[in-house]
Amino acid sequence: MKLKLIRYTPEPERTVAMSARLCYSASGAEDLVETMSDEQVGKLIAQLLNMGHLSTFEHASFTFAIEGISRVLTHQLVRHRIASYSQQSQRYVSEHGFEYIVPPAIATNPEAKAKFDALMSQVQETYDELVRLGVHKEDARYVLANATETKIVVTMNARSLLHFFEKRCCQRAQWEIRNLANAMLAEVKAVAPRLFAGAGPACVTSGYCPEGQLSCGRLAGIQLSK
Amino acid sequence: MKLKLIRYTPEPERTVAMSARLCYSASGAEDLVETMSDEQVGKLIAQLLNMGHLSTFEHASFTFAIEGISRVLTHQLVRHRIASYSQQSQRYVSEHGFEYIVPPAIATNPEAKAKFDALMSQVQETYDELVRLGVHKEDARYVLANATETKIVVTMNARSLLHFFEKRCCQRAQWEIRNLANAMLAEVKAVAPRLFAGAGPACVTSGYCPEGQLSCGRLAGIQLSK
Amino acid sequence: MKLKLIRYTPEPERTVAMSARLCYSASGAEDLVETMSDEQVGKLIAQLLNMGHLSTFEHASFTFAIEGISRVLTHQLVRHRIASYSQQSQRYVSEHGFEYIVPPAIATNPEAKAKFDALMSQVQETYDELVRLGVHKEDARYVLANATETKIVVTMNARSLLHFFEKRCCQRAQWEIRNLANAMLAEVKAVAPRLFAGAGPACVTSGYCPEGQLSCGRLAGIQLSK
Amino acid sequence: MKLKLIRYTPEPERTVAMSARLCYSASGAEDLVETMSDEQVGKLIAQLLNMGHLSTFEHASFTFAIEGISRVLTHQLVRHRIASYSQQSQRYVSEHGFEYIVPPAIATNPEAKAKFDALMSQVQETYDELVRLGVHKEDARYVLANATETKIVVTMNARSLLHFFEKRCCQRAQWEIRNLANAMLAEVKAVAPRLFAGAGPACVTSGYCPEGQLSCGRLAGIQLSK
Repeated sequence: MKLKLIRYTPEPERTVAMSARLCYSASGAEDLVETMSDEQVGKLIAQLLNMGHLSTFEHASFTFAIEGISRVLTHQLVRHRIASYSQQSQRYVSEHGFEYIVPPAIATNPEAKAKFDALMSQVQETYDELVRLGVHKEDARYVLANATETKIVVTMNARSLLHFFEKRCCQRAQWEIRNLANAMLAEVKAVAPRLFAGAGPACVTSGYCPEGQLSCGRLAGIQLSK
Repeated sequence: MKLKLIRYTPEPERTVAMSARLCYSASGAEDLVETMSDEQVGKLIAQLLNMGHLSTFEHASFTFAIEGISRVLTHQLVRHRIASYSQQSQRYVSEHGFEYIVPPAIATNPEAKAKFDALMSQVQETYDELVRLGVHKEDARYVLANATETKIVVTMNARSLLHFFEKRCCQRAQWEIRNLANAMLAEVKAVAPRLFAGAGPACVTSGYCPEGQLSCGRLAGIQLSK
Repeated sequence: MKLKLIRYTPEPERTVAMSARLCYSASGAEDLVETMSDEQVGKLIAQLLNMGHLSTFEHASFTFAIEGISRVLTHQLVRHRIASYSQQSQRYVSEHGFEYIVPPAIATNPEAKAKFDALMSQVQETYDELVRLGVHKEDARYVLANATETKIVVTMNARSLLHFFEKRCCQRAQWEIRNLANAMLAEVKAVAPRLFAGAGPACVTSGYCPEGQLSCGRLAGIQLSK
Repeated sequence: MKLKLIRYTPEPERTVAMSARLCYSASGAEDLVETMSDEQVGKLIAQLLNMGHLSTFEHASFTFAIEGISRVLTHQLVRHRIASYSQQSQRYVSEHGFEYIVPPAIATNPEAKAKFDALMSQVQETYDELVRLGVHKEDARYVLANATETKIVVTMNARSLLHFFEKRCCQRAQWEIRNLANAMLAEVKAVAPRLFAGAGPACVTSGYCPEGQLSCGRLAGIQLSK
């Protein structure tokens, strides 16, 4: 997986704090831009997070370029609807020479790995033959595997990201999208640490496990369910 | 493809007309329910469509159960964000004995069809072997093809459907999702003919081809672009 | 306030349960419609609620006609974006003879009530005079008070309603929108009791008060914050 | 009205072009950032606009601080749901000394203006008296007029803005929100001229008047309806 945070709203923390301040103050937004100290910004963000008043977090957006992920992952990813996506098209881009993602449980099992790789070779061969037989890329792609590598540009605002992390950083999330969620969280924490201070799976943000499960280590010492 | 309209807002046309009437009238909504004649309902809907005032169309929702479609189709479908989806999970449901969708261009080409079928057999074999080797379904599915059959429940309101038909009934839309869109349009027209009277691809609804293309028969006699 | 649930998805509970079942079963959606017992429907909905898996709740929609509310209320209401609204227009509908909402704290204070009513009379008089002077309704309405009565049709799906109830049934929500939320909850509970079994403010659904406050009676005996 | 574009996605045009390129190219997103010439960026954006392929326009967001507008305007504004809002609260901020917006049709009519101002004075007086009588701000605000000045922070992406301009730059839109829309358009055109090159009311972007009206000058020479 190759992930890069390619764009984000300048000064995301101050943008959020200033918008929140506007709601509760007689001052204009412009004044607030200039007059809030960095400490005030931090304090206000902490209060908003503590009270779950997250609508102002929507004013800060983050755009990622992501490569080296499978279409298993993106079919889950694009289900998050408060977000924007631009994905590489299998209809227009040739998959001659496609790459693919191998699940760790298969990569570490030599017998499984051999079968997996052998099948991927046959998929490539069949795809190429179909194209040679005059089948268009948009139809030849029906043979491509879920494992096929894809690329995508994703934009989410900070509030939508917090929700995404709650669902997808969870130990019970599928491994590939969990890896992506953790990588995205590391990226945004680097540029807006206070917006994402407590971000993570629901058990971390809320103190209980909504999955009602005992299956992961994180559960030790926290409340099992509501 | 197997499509069924399983639920919809009762009296969808009257629901839309009554909501529109409320905006421009001093009467209460309840009075409007009872006092509008069927003819008035039809006339008001025609005006709303003609002027593009479609917000009231959101009060009527339609739920479809769809089977016998590929994950090529659903990966496109779920990109429509003003809609609700529940899709059969490849993580939890075994794909031993999976079925698959064959594109017409392949089904009608014996050589291509033979290669396609042969590959699907090998995919099934590899999937089953991986499971036998202890690989979980959620990882074994990485070998499954885009062609694999899936099932999904979809809910869209009438406004979102009109937009969906504009994009996906177009001759340039991918064949499988176009077939679905046309089938969905037939279903909703049967129960709410006046809401979907002029529904279809953008060239039909707006009079020009936003694709700026000459590639389809529909274009004859209509304006090529704005 | 006059509230009526005028439309909803037929069999809302079964619709949700059937959609959820599809995700985890090899059966088709149609089969599920017929084969689930009412008890199975109830059990599945309880599990979904307990685990917070609410996406299937989106397939059931509810439409309300609401009258006798103020524009204070609707300005808050329409901030809920996963919903559809049709509101009586002050641009097109004359406000000669408008009615208005009196907050209980004013209604029960004779001195305040007298001043409130006196002002409303003057608002009406000024509005009428402006119209007589040739000012269009769309401009004359600038003098109308927040208290002015309005009518609105609202459609929300069950998931969006659950979120709405979490925010607006809270003791700290503004009184008028809280009254509306409680009335809407009573209506949907009557037709889909199992979907809204545990619905209410966040302290009821999650067991802690996200507002971090001590100001309301409900807090006794529950955790104050995370 | 006081409007300021306080934040936006850096290099909004390049962000859009790069995301679009990714969909149709085998290259990764990062390569595209560096290798597209400014001319290529412009050409690609023009193609996207011409074909109505606007999903990539969502990756560029714009945040405005707006003051000196009425609650007539904001009640319309917040109906645009693909956007984020933070508005000054009449519940928490005192309206002692509130300012108000006078519609031009009233400002230019001395008799109407006198009545308007007189009423606003009485509103202020009544508000202040209610507060003195112990009524909370959240209830005293029921007497405040639609004309009362408010402040709001708004974030929309470029696609949502294009839709907003289609509806609200129209001569038939209400004057105050039309003024706002035109001012917002001027601001974003200054920083992303190619994204908003053809932006404006629907008659300008589509070549026909969806309102089906003869009431405005712009109609001369263009098609009246579809």
